[in-house]
Amino acid sequence: MKEFDLIKRYFAEQPVQRKDVLLGIGDDCAIVVADDKHHIAITTDTLVSGVHFFEDTDPRAIGHKSIAVSLSDLAAMGAEPSWISLAISMPSIDEDWVEQFCAGVFELSEYYNVQLIGGDTTSGPLSITVTAQGLTPVDKRLTRAGANAGDWIYVTGEIGDAALALQYLLKNVAVEEVYRDQLLTKLHYPKPKVLAGQLLKEYASSAIDLSDGLIGDLNHICQASNVGANLVLDSIPLSQALVETLGLEQGVKLALNGGDDYELLFTVSEDNKVGMETALNNANVKHTCIGQLNGNDKITTTLDNQPIQIDAKGFEHFLHD
Amino acid sequence: MKEFDLIKRYFAEQPVQRKDVLLGIGDDCAIVVADDKHHIAITTDTLVSGVHFFEDTDPRAIGHKSIAVSLSDLAAMGAEPSWISLAISMPSIDEDWVEQFCAGVFELSEYYNVQLIGGDTTSGPLSITVTAQGLTPVDKRLTRAGANAGDWIYVTGEIGDAALALQYLLKNVAVEEVYRDQLLTKLHYPKPKVLAGQLLKEYASSAIDLSDGLIGDLNHICQASNVGANLVLDSIPLSQALVETLGLEQGVKLALNGGDDYELLFTVSEDNKVGMETALNNANVKHTCIGQLNGNDKITTTLDNQPIQIDAKGFEHFLHD
Repeated sequence: MKEFDLIKRYFAEQPVQRKDVLLGIGDDCAIVVADDKHHIAITTDTLVSGVHFFEDTDPRAIGHKSIAVSLSDLAAMGAEPSWISLAISMPSIDEDWVEQFCAGVFELSEYYNVQLIGGDTTSGPLSITVTAQGLTPVDKRLTRAGANAGDWIYVTGEIGDAALALQYLLKNVAVEEVYRDQLLTKLHYPKPKVLAGQLLKEYASSAIDLSDGLIGDLNHICQASNVGANLVLDSIPLSQALVETLGLEQGVKLALNGGDDYELLFTVSEDNKVGMETALNNANVKHTCIGQLNGNDKITTTLDNQPIQIDAKGFEHFLHD
Repeated sequence: MKEFDLIKRYFAEQPVQRKDVLLGIGDDCAIVVADDKHHIAITTDTLVSGVHFFEDTDPRAIGHKSIAVSLSDLAAMGAEPSWISLAISMPSIDEDWVEQFCAGVFELSEYYNVQLIGGDTTSGPLSITVTAQGLTPVDKRLTRAGANAGDWIYVTGEIGDAALALQYLLKNVAVEEVYRDQLLTKLHYPKPKVLAGQLLKEYASSAIDLSDGLIGDLNHICQASNVGANLVLDSIPLSQALVETLGLEQGVKLALNGGDDYELLFTVSEDNKVGMETALNNANVKHTCIGQLNGNDKITTTLDNQPIQIDAKGFEHFLHD
């Protein structure tokens, strides 16, 4: 099967046809239109086989995750996802694989009304690069840079589960059967927090999506906003699966340093706290306050109201200080 | 060196700072603004080491070409290049390599005033995916689909040189030393025909950039526009280097079926011919009429005013019919 047939059969026929896509797949470029009330948010992410996913991962999961990680970046900017371009390199064309991969792509793109407008298919080691674009209102911008000392730090959902699933697949950790599906779903089919991001752009002072681990991503907000932070370790939301599998101490460590959560980490001023809580509660978005920003230039942590040391790779003397 | 340092040192500091980029590298997304007089043209291309370029290719050339192939797609739509996202996978971080690669990227992006607004750097087999965006006037659109029977077929520049350079590197062909640099430059440092595309959007009925070879790309126009074509083989513009190296017959074959030219193939109505000729002449853009569209459903070819057979992969009985 040739590239053009492949594109025609699997990629060009898709569930979403947006009105703002004037020209989709099939020419040298796609053509889209943005109105004067919106800016365009653009993000690019690459997943490489053997680096970001195991070679034998279900292709539907690979398709899903390729799109999810980029939509998660759009969510962190409060953007409404609109268009995606998908470049895929494959060693050879396995039609079953491509069909499953596309199913994963289009399930997610249909749910969020995102249209695949173009891309490239090439011969090469398996690797997928997605560029996703979304619309943000001209007068509302949510970035990493707007946070202030005194703002409260929140996360959506529960964190650490995807990192635990990875450790389970690496056979570093045994996981009880009852928890396996739920953990693997967190790793393979992350749900980008698009709705939460759109609500948060009205209330939050900064936001980032959790891809590199809580400490690393909080550090990005602190650096961009010139603030410090104190994290209350006891309040980090962990799943029962994580706590029962690793215990509280190791669970918190994994949440701090693991990655792949694709939850949102955001900050909100005291004034906007009630409005934000109400909006997220009405939308059934789980969210938890896990600390507060301050005027220092570093991230500190407390446990049982006592300071506790962390280093770049985690924290030391936890529970034994 | 870590990813963030790499991005900061080599990618974030760049020569171009456009006013329509509200937020560039460094957050979850870039933010750009499009005005209400323009649509946005978007294209994505991947270059894989060992497939699209030899592993030991000068990294400056790889950087140049990564951008050039996408700008060439924008040129074919008559778009003004504006923003690029660059995803690069590398097996390891070789700073000298990255520096040279970036030099190639930024030489071209500076020339065309295109800003790098984001991307991704990952560990993996060497591969580069660029998504380029450009602005097209709301009331002018140049695609593959607007051609009509009777329109004249043109190409810019000379074609076949990049394909000859590839055959030389593969040691399939000996090339005299006097021609080598010029041919290798055509392969490694193609010049996207951005200015020509912007002029052509006023006059041409269709356009495509030559990446897959003249026959294949003309076929794309014919299919999209529902027309046939006759190519006058004697008029295909070949360089002296190509003709002296391969002779006329093999030279034309290579021009028809080689690729990587990144010249523009376009069609123009009888009425717009003089206007187009004047505009391209004033801009010093070499262009040659190589045939005419018709109402048939296939591509025919003539030589010395006599029909001559071609098949999908080229043409048979050339000069011996």
